[in-house]
Amino acid sequence: MNEDTMIEWYLEPCAEISAELAEQATQRQTQLTKPPGSLGQLEKIAIELSSMQAQLAPTVDQVEIAVFAGDHGIANEAVSAFPQVVTTEMVKNFVRGGAAISVMARQIGAGLTVVNAGTINQQGFEAPVVDKPVAFGTGNIAIQPAMTALQCLQALSLGKEILDGYDDATDVVIGGEMGIGNTTSATALATAFGVSTAENLVGPGTGLDHKGVSHKLKMIEQALDRVGADRVIDQCSELELLSELGGFEIVALTGFYIRAAQRGMTILVDGFISTVAAAAACKINPNARAWMLFSHNSAEPGHQLVLKSLNAEPLLSLQMRLGEGSGAAVALGLLRAACALHNDMATFEEAGVTDA
Amino acid sequence: MNEDTMIEWYLEPCAEISAELAEQATQRQTQLTKPPGSLGQLEKIAIELSSMQAQLAPTVDQVEIAVFAGDHGIANEAVSAFPQVVTTEMVKNFVRGGAAISVMARQIGAGLTVVNAGTINQQGFEAPVVDKPVAFGTGNIAIQPAMTALQCLQALSLGKEILDGYDDATDVVIGGEMGIGNTTSATALATAFGVSTAENLVGPGTGLDHKGVSHKLKMIEQALDRVGADRVIDQCSELELLSELGGFEIVALTGFYIRAAQRGMTILVDGFISTVAAAAACKINPNARAWMLFSHNSAEPGHQLVLKSLNAEPLLSLQMRLGEGSGAAVALGLLRAACALHNDMATFEEAGVTDA
Repeated sequence: MNEDTMIEWYLEPCAEISAELAEQATQRQTQLTKPPGSLGQLEKIAIELSSMQAQLAPTVDQVEIAVFAGDHGIANEAVSAFPQVVTTEMVKNFVRGGAAISVMARQIGAGLTVVNAGTINQQGFEAPVVDKPVAFGTGNIAIQPAMTALQCLQALSLGKEILDGYDDATDVVIGGEMGIGNTTSATALATAFGVSTAENLVGPGTGLDHKGVSHKLKMIEQALDRVGADRVIDQCSELELLSELGGFEIVALTGFYIRAAQRGMTILVDGFISTVAAAAACKINPNARAWMLFSHNSAEPGHQLVLKSLNAEPLLSLQMRLGEGSGAAVALGLLRAACALHNDMATFEEAGVTDA
Repeated sequence: MNEDTMIEWYLEPCAEISAELAEQATQRQTQLTKPPGSLGQLEKIAIELSSMQAQLAPTVDQVEIAVFAGDHGIANEAVSAFPQVVTTEMVKNFVRGGAAISVMARQIGAGLTVVNAGTINQQGFEAPVVDKPVAFGTGNIAIQPAMTALQCLQALSLGKEILDGYDDATDVVIGGEMGIGNTTSATALATAFGVSTAENLVGPGTGLDHKGVSHKLKMIEQALDRVGADRVIDQCSELELLSELGGFEIVALTGFYIRAAQRGMTILVDGFISTVAAAAACKINPNARAWMLFSHNSAEPGHQLVLKSLNAEPLLSLQMRLGEGSGAAVALGLLRAACALHNDMATFEEAGVTDA
């Protein structure tokens, strides 16, 4: 390939969705022994899975979860209810099986890959943690860029590398994240992406009180002012914004999502931070959106706004706000129910039932 | 027992809920490695299941579904998008495995009992249908009572009989219904129970258009006027209202729920019609409410109002409107997720994770 025509991997086209199968699956839904539309969102999900998998009987058998962990310099500014060491401690908890995502991965029979994308832990993690830190935490975004442009590309590629480790039979991928302070980073990014104002998007994260949220908002505005002082935010590329305001786990998730869409794997997006990473993926490579299903609307107030900006209809609204991919893992069963109903129900003709 | 002190079975006390276990389970939730409250409704569900089962590690292993079918005289008044024969045809579809509830019962590993509580089918059903029709359809409630007082007690007892067939190890029971015309009956009952006006409660059911809904409302108002002409509706007992406006499947469900609460089994309530039966059960035996969890908020507009009257917080809102117990079966996985997280997550102490 000539250098002039080379494009970066993350700009390469996403896999195609089958419009023909969407139509066939829609048709099948009207023939099943139920009033048309009476399975609500489960019908839409089955149709979407049919069109993604290009088969009339979609499956959600093989599921892979990757949780990316990273630390945030902004954690020094008291923006979280938990100390920064918790990121490292939770990485160990993930692989020992005691965290929510570990429990849910077992329950749904999914693979679980835990990735150190850039925690402060300089001792390194033992296997099975995939220990590939881009750096030992990001810069404090209130006063400096989170990472360099090169580090941003490294984090993006880390997400790709994890996704490329999955075999082609993978039906659904779930990305999760862990990083004390990362709702601050995600809120700053969502604001910079033009979703809404920081004031509308900011929330309590793991459990800040009203005063804590006000302080967090000040830090986010300071970070945005810092970036805006050098350049016009609206004219920044997504990669520039990710470098300035992101986190290693958020950028890795972005790369993970883009690669999943390129390989034609269904993405089940988790909560606020994951959805911001999904928004970044769609800004970088817009056709990635077609491969995304949205699991839940979390308790974090900004989540709903980011979902809306993506025209997303989440499946659950259980006031969850844990991250790790946990909401997506809980919603996975609904995809399986949608497939079972779509594939296994009798048609009016097969059952000898009179149609309306 | 002296006859003076005998009470009807449906008025006998419900099983007790353990306040002590609710407290212990609440305590455990705060010790698990997650921000407090961050599993949202799943935490509440786990705590409720702990208190119902009087054990700190609740289980949702053994699940029983019973679908009650009955026909409605009001179906002659064009209140449904489907002809009345569909009730009978669907009963056959349930046991042959082609209906939504059949598919979901297999998926969640639940027992499925299909009960003819009173369809128009005079030929009878073959096993495994439990063929115990109280009568071959109800009277047309617009012009006459749905059933006699004796038939109402028979239908109530049919629900008890099905529930009594379950062994003590049953963790969760789901009741479902099938009956062309039964949203009309359920809407009339909800109105008579004082939930709201018929105009607020009426909806499209299986798929009426605007004109059809207007006509359905007229039929409901005619039925209520008929009952009101003879007596003051507010002063009618629940059993009188069930006799006047109910259906055999609705009354059987009511008995099924009451008996489940008496035996101390968790009830996962399905959609609009089931929730009206749950409301009837709670009116007859108010402590039954403590044994109910609510699976979903359906697309039928009256459902939300009936749920509100029961202070119910449903788990799902997927615009489902099929009945059969299908919404409850889809939500069952969330109860299992709630238990797995509650039982299997590590505490901060066990995992060596720093608390907030």
